[in-house]
Amino acid sequence: MATQVKIEKKVLSENDRLAADIRQQLQQHGVVALNFVSSPGSGKTSLLEKTLSALKDELRIGLIAGDVQTENDANRLRLAGGQMVQPLVTGGACHLDAKMITRVLPEFDLSRLDLLIIENVGNLVCPSSYDLGEAMKVVLISTTEGDDKPLKYPGMFRRSSVMVINKIDLLGTSDFDLERVKANARQINADLKIFEVSCRTGEGLDAWYDWLRDLVRR
Amino acid sequence: MATQVKIEKKVLSENDRLAADIRQQLQQHGVVALNFVSSPGSGKTSLLEKTLSALKDELRIGLIAGDVQTENDANRLRLAGGQMVQPLVTGGACHLDAKMITRVLPEFDLSRLDLLIIENVGNLVCPSSYDLGEAMKVVLISTTEGDDKPLKYPGMFRRSSVMVINKIDLLGTSDFDLERVKANARQINADLKIFEVSCRTGEGLDAWYDWLRDLVRR
Repeated sequence: MATQVKIEKKVLSENDRLAADIRQQLQQHGVVALNFVSSPGSGKTSLLEKTLSALKDELRIGLIAGDVQTENDANRLRLAGGQMVQPLVTGGACHLDAKMITRVLPEFDLSRLDLLIIENVGNLVCPSSYDLGEAMKVVLISTTEGDDKPLKYPGMFRRSSVMVINKIDLLGTSDFDLERVKANARQINADLKIFEVSCRTGEGLDAWYDWLRDLVRR
Repeated sequence: MATQVKIEKKVLSENDRLAADIRQQLQQHGVVALNFVSSPGSGKTSLLEKTLSALKDELRIGLIAGDVQTENDANRLRLAGGQMVQPLVTGGACHLDAKMITRVLPEFDLSRLDLLIIENVGNLVCPSSYDLGEAMKVVLISTTEGDDKPLKYPGMFRRSSVMVINKIDLLGTSDFDLERVKANARQINADLKIFEVSCRTGEGLDAWYDWLRDLVRR
């Protein structure tokens, strides 16, 4: 197993090198990149559909839609008005890595983008270890998943800058406690910026849109 | 990357060897082992709590509660009446493997067990590649996760024998369609045995308990 650890370290440092190249390219063109991570079904694609509908005439948004199989998410994002959407099917791999991003990035004209959103594979563990050259990771958690998830999957919450709590319209249908999930998340990462939204009812989304606008204008 | 693939193959074949040893030990003692897999928050621990409450005086159930961090699940299972519960904290790894099971298995007196339930890490990708010596994998999916998950994460649904659809009390709060998720799952795996349950209301659980009883008596 020592050999496996060495190989993993080598793969990760190669990933870091490629991620640094990506980050430099994005910064040169003033593109802000966000890496969206969560469990399967937390609502990454739903949040991006809403975000596109609200901001597509205001910000130039590119999207990379990662999935183990199917281009379902890329198709949904195009239907929601995404003009620049690249599917990225891993064919089995449990996370996106910088090499995959390097492969699809030339499909975008970076000089015509404000924001690049990368939707990672639904997985609360592995994607946390792979820098994709993003400005920050945004982790989603939905109110149907249990409020102890930040403690059980701490790596992802430690390495994210933003946590979006989705499906707040379903609060009360389970034991999920909004204050407890926030306390658990801040125990792992005191600096986490937190949004509470429902992609179904639209509640809380305006604050999210405003934050994105500010992020791009900064 | 070719070296990485070779190393991965070696690790997997070592895993298969250990899994075969585990399987043989379990069969010698007539213990049926189930490997529970799902996204984080689908309700694996909730289903096991209910199962313990219903069957603990009837079947001798051992549990291995896997998590990336915390012994929360193991503690919940003990509170639900679990007499033989072993926590298995991976400390970062995204799946359980046969080596980890080999390490905790001696904690159980197999001659006094009917059923061994292994609760894997919440992850719909990586655990599908690791045989733990189980008789079968049971995959959970909840009605809040989206009905396209079997198509997007096909490996897990292909390698599972049973699919439990949990949180059916929340049907109607999203676009999740019960018939569509079953059709999608059967497209990947035509032989999948399917249960529809709500751990919250108890609906559908009797059929699940009956199936477990039959499985152990066979």
